[in-house]
Amino acid sequence: MKRPNNNPSAAALDSFSIRTIGYVQSAYTKTKDVPHTHTGWTADTSYIRLLPRYAKGLGGLTGYSHIIVSFWVHKAKEWKMPKNHRKPPHVKLFATRMPVRPNPVGMSVVELLNFSTDSGEVIVKGLDALDGTPVLDIKPYIPNFDSYPKASVPDWVRRHLNSHHHSGHTHHDENADNNTSQYPYEQGALEHNK
Amino acid sequence: MKRPNNNPSAAALDSFSIRTIGYVQSAYTKTKDVPHTHTGWTADTSYIRLLPRYAKGLGGLTGYSHIIVSFWVHKAKEWKMPKNHRKPPHVKLFATRMPVRPNPVGMSVVELLNFSTDSGEVIVKGLDALDGTPVLDIKPYIPNFDSYPKASVPDWVRRHLNSHHHSGHTHHDENADNNTSQYPYEQGALEHNK
Repeated sequence: MKRPNNNPSAAALDSFSIRTIGYVQSAYTKTKDVPHTHTGWTADTSYIRLLPRYAKGLGGLTGYSHIIVSFWVHKAKEWKMPKNHRKPPHVKLFATRMPVRPNPVGMSVVELLNFSTDSGEVIVKGLDALDGTPVLDIKPYIPNFDSYPKASVPDWVRRHLNSHHHSGHTHHDENADNNTSQYPYEQGALEHNK
Repeated sequence: MKRPNNNPSAAALDSFSIRTIGYVQSAYTKTKDVPHTHTGWTADTSYIRLLPRYAKGLGGLTGYSHIIVSFWVHKAKEWKMPKNHRKPPHVKLFATRMPVRPNPVGMSVVELLNFSTDSGEVIVKGLDALDGTPVLDIKPYIPNFDSYPKASVPDWVRRHLNSHHHSGHTHHDENADNNTSQYPYEQGALEHNK
């Protein structure tokens, strides 16, 4: 194993251009309207409208019940590492799903309801993305790779899941519009743990 | 709902700059060495070495058994939509996990073994990424959102999973070096279905 940091080519790999393949059309025009994805049974229907040149690429999706949608959280605030690292002692950046992160890419497993290789339209249930959100990728959800039902989470996450996630409600956090959070509750989780 | 395609600001949302947050250090220097992620019990250990400025962002990961790693498949061939759409009638682009796609971003659920907020090192098991692969994001795996054990897949995928994925072997596909596939088998699956 070589150390990538010593790899002379690494400098050329510090950023990449990622392209929009389509846009979300949803009922959510404000962050506070975005529901929690896990409450699929109450989730609204959203549409992904692929750019025409990608429409044919939807072929083969028949038979998948779920897909993974990646999207650029275009309303997220720019991420900056807090200057004061002492309070909290460590920054919960990679331990939450908040979109305020170095790369504001959201990732959600959603139910695939229908799609068209002609129009490039994909109809899904449970996508927690604002109307107009740029979509970056669609991947098939394959339980063999993607499903770990017994995966553990920290207590502070479990407590929050138990207290907030038993019903399909939508958060109406006053700060939500600032956070534009993929899962707004996690901002709250952070605040509880400061 | 407005149609994003008619949104005058959409033109400004057609591509984004995504930044490397670290690099993979693994035993896999060639694509043919990359194992299948789902066979976690045979998977090798890999390291993610975050750039120093992101190290503190690992705080709070204690208690998570799994994380989702996004990475730029830097060895993937550039994607082009095939010109002949008739054979196969539709292109299986979004129906596979092949990295030859508009945005060559791989996404894998891996076991979190250890991490350090000082060194920025993350030790994981089951990461199907070449040595030197740029890492784009680390997200916590939260079963409530991410685990759908009963999600269905098409018959052509299930057949392939059943025939190839019962043991922890590594594929040695002659074409693998050209594909640089996140899951090399899926290239085979495509070929079977032409």
